[in-house]
Amino acid sequence: MTERIGFYQDLVVSAEEAAKHVNHGDRVGISGFTGAGYPKALPAAIAEKAKAAHEKGEEFKIDLFSGASTAPDCDGVLAEAEAIRFRTPYNSDPVLRGQFNDGTALYQDLHLSHSGQQVEEGFYGDFQVAIIEVVRITEDGNIIPSSAVGNNLEYIDAADKIILEVNEWQSLNLEGMHDIYKIQKLPNRLPIPITQCDDRIGTPYIELPKEKVVAVVKTNAPDRNAPFKEPDEVSEKIAANFIEFLEGEVAAGRLDYDKFIMQSGVGNVPNAVMAGLLDSKFENIQAYTEVIQDGMLNLIDAGKMTVASATSFALSPEYADKMNEQADFYNKHIILRPQQVSNHPEVIRRVGLISSNGMIEADIYGNINSTNVGGSRIMNGTGGSGDYTRNGYITTFVSPSVAKGGAISAIVPFVSHTDHTEHDTMVIITEYGVADLRGLAPCERVERIIAIAHPDYRPLLEEYYERAQQNKFLHTPHDLETAFEFQINFAKTGDMRGK
Amino acid sequence: MTERIGFYQDLVVSAEEAAKHVNHGDRVGISGFTGAGYPKALPAAIAEKAKAAHEKGEEFKIDLFSGASTAPDCDGVLAEAEAIRFRTPYNSDPVLRGQFNDGTALYQDLHLSHSGQQVEEGFYGDFQVAIIEVVRITEDGNIIPSSAVGNNLEYIDAADKIILEVNEWQSLNLEGMHDIYKIQKLPNRLPIPITQCDDRIGTPYIELPKEKVVAVVKTNAPDRNAPFKEPDEVSEKIAANFIEFLEGEVAAGRLDYDKFIMQSGVGNVPNAVMAGLLDSKFENIQAYTEVIQDGMLNLIDAGKMTVASATSFALSPEYADKMNEQADFYNKHIILRPQQVSNHPEVIRRVGLISSNGMIEADIYGNINSTNVGGSRIMNGTGGSGDYTRNGYITTFVSPSVAKGGAISAIVPFVSHTDHTEHDTMVIITEYGVADLRGLAPCERVERIIAIAHPDYRPLLEEYYERAQQNKFLHTPHDLETAFEFQINFAKTGDMRGK
Repeated sequence: MTERIGFYQDLVVSAEEAAKHVNHGDRVGISGFTGAGYPKALPAAIAEKAKAAHEKGEEFKIDLFSGASTAPDCDGVLAEAEAIRFRTPYNSDPVLRGQFNDGTALYQDLHLSHSGQQVEEGFYGDFQVAIIEVVRITEDGNIIPSSAVGNNLEYIDAADKIILEVNEWQSLNLEGMHDIYKIQKLPNRLPIPITQCDDRIGTPYIELPKEKVVAVVKTNAPDRNAPFKEPDEVSEKIAANFIEFLEGEVAAGRLDYDKFIMQSGVGNVPNAVMAGLLDSKFENIQAYTEVIQDGMLNLIDAGKMTVASATSFALSPEYADKMNEQADFYNKHIILRPQQVSNHPEVIRRVGLISSNGMIEADIYGNINSTNVGGSRIMNGTGGSGDYTRNGYITTFVSPSVAKGGAISAIVPFVSHTDHTEHDTMVIITEYGVADLRGLAPCERVERIIAIAHPDYRPLLEEYYERAQQNKFLHTPHDLETAFEFQINFAKTGDMRGK
Repeated sequence: MTERIGFYQDLVVSAEEAAKHVNHGDRVGISGFTGAGYPKALPAAIAEKAKAAHEKGEEFKIDLFSGASTAPDCDGVLAEAEAIRFRTPYNSDPVLRGQFNDGTALYQDLHLSHSGQQVEEGFYGDFQVAIIEVVRITEDGNIIPSSAVGNNLEYIDAADKIILEVNEWQSLNLEGMHDIYKIQKLPNRLPIPITQCDDRIGTPYIELPKEKVVAVVKTNAPDRNAPFKEPDEVSEKIAANFIEFLEGEVAAGRLDYDKFIMQSGVGNVPNAVMAGLLDSKFENIQAYTEVIQDGMLNLIDAGKMTVASATSFALSPEYADKMNEQADFYNKHIILRPQQVSNHPEVIRRVGLISSNGMIEADIYGNINSTNVGGSRIMNGTGGSGDYTRNGYITTFVSPSVAKGGAISAIVPFVSHTDHTEHDTMVIITEYGVADLRGLAPCERVERIIAIAHPDYRPLLEEYYERAQQNKFLHTPHDLETAFEFQINFAKTGDMRGK
């Protein structure tokens, strides 16, 4: 393993020893995005330290900043130890989420392209520690990041001390896949020189301020790598509707079968879309997105996708193994960028991508709730969906029309939380079809949106719209007294239909 | 007036004659932004044509696309003639607004940086006519736009026919103030090469496809030029709070007294802010914004502002005269750009501006309603507020704490329409203070936001938050059954307090 460490050999310590650098009240910035590239050893060691302190009746909580979500052995162990006071910009860990919802931990849910910038700009104050997972340390003391780049640059820059985790599980062949470009600080920012998804504009390593490195910890542990689920019938129908929509755009002269650029959220439906694209007429597909998913590797393997640009992996265990074995091949087709670059409005708008993200609910005018069930209960977070939806060429939301066996409708009269406004939403897709809202006034959208709701809910939505039209103001007709009827029903009876 | 026309001398006709090119069902793109640079003669002529058709029992309605708002002699006359079926991307005309609200005309309220792009991308279909006000036609048949650039490029490009209005009222010395840069079409877009507010990257004229020009109409009529109101006590308090906030940012090392970049919505409070800046320590102020307002001319006159980059004027009659007299002087300090450039996320994020926009209401978590009173009644539109708020360095909303003599609170439990989400809002300012929400979880924001509400409403907001905390989910506590209590009270009694 020496070829992975070298320069900082004298700083190699145990995780417990390294965790001594992390204290109560610290702001800690870590690597990691969507379960990839997060530190594997320090979180447990910090959690132990917190538990020991709590047992002695002492306070021990940190403010935790990452790229995006991590895993049970990171957010999970820290949350179980009640060691997190504040978390940003994204979380999907169920234990930590429970603490946000019971009010014992705080969460700022932020656009992923904004978080690093706001750290740089000093909105949070000083950072004490950065903990970064790396593939290896270069001969001159710089680092090759692992399976995510995230906000590594910003945390390394902001922190007083840097702890490196060198993870032997990560393939040395990831080296060369990263493209590290640092956006200049204000007031001297320059254009980001990416004009095509496959442009490389930086270095394959992150330059470290060597004097800040205080500890190096050796690990050998896999990324989270959630198992891949075979697409179900509903996902396949949504995917088919999505691809039919794309075909329609080609027919309308607004898209070409060659070189369409995709962005895709994570999950079952996106994977079904990618499976559908495998058999489609689309060729030389490109991705300018946040995460590399199984479906993209399949598209690359099949010669259908030429480049996937992202900031991290989100692979199944099987595909993570495949990546580690064939990283030298994927290296030619995959670029991992800092998340400020992968999610940057400037580049997203310039390349002209078609975005596709999940949602909790949409209302009859096209407002989207991506985050808070019933207006109050945080699920994961807005993530990069706002970065891509606000700036994409064509922006879509995809969702099954119902959840929990029909008890929850994805189409409601009034969203209980808004993450994307009616000004941003272009297209909503369910298994019942495509609601293309482009160029329409709010009241023109209603019929199209109700048409893709689950048939059980269509009459209820129509009744609401009838009632809303009794309002004397008809630009966006609402009946505020019954606008949240669906969500209130669900809270009371467990079914939005009020059963 | 010949030096203003030249090249198309043979095409000079009356407005009535030119209006023959505009037919029922047409998509018509016009110049004009915030009451400046809109066509002065054709709208009335089209309105007459519509009235004549209606009298004969024939249909006559057009879809009208602009830069932003126009004036009574444009949107107003067309609305009075019931000649508008659909309008986008922005309107502030009261007659037309009335038609959106009574359901007799349709309105798509869109981010101003998105509208031209969506026209180019074919989301609306073909355009029949573009009507553009100009200062003069150049010797080789190109045009010098007048007091707004707006979406001129996109409409000229999209339309089959072009009608020019040459307005002698506009100063010939506006020539040189415009900086016309065309963003490339997909898939070959390049970085927009602006790195500083005063960068000029294009030409002082718009190149015309000469074969499309079908008529030239001579006019001599002023822009709308709403009279300037002296700041009232509340506006002055808000302005003082805003400047105190800026001073705090300087003290915190996040801003410099030299070269701060402002964006500002239009209105009383912004003008009070600019008056306050006149006496402040800030020097070499720059503006990267939508509209040039009286206060900016004062700052330029006083040597406090070096450059104001925008897409149009929004001046009082007095200041419009001043501009026409001294355009050769202001030419050195003012740049008028296409609205895709003035409002482009890429440039806004790069330069790092501090935005300041008005609002209708904010909720206790920082969601902002800029457009729909009581969720349904459209006022003006979201305009460029989303372009600047999503992408600015520090983004603020400014508003008096109450309207209609206290009957309406600007702070409510739950916004009845969301134009800017809790993920976007950084700072809210009223006459009662500054709510700095940066880096805070939703429940941490509540106390700060209630503190700047009007004292009459603070107990009601506290009661709501108490009730909301009975919810078992505490990330964004809400009581959906009473969330719209304020707005429902207002609809029923004319007072949000339910009096």
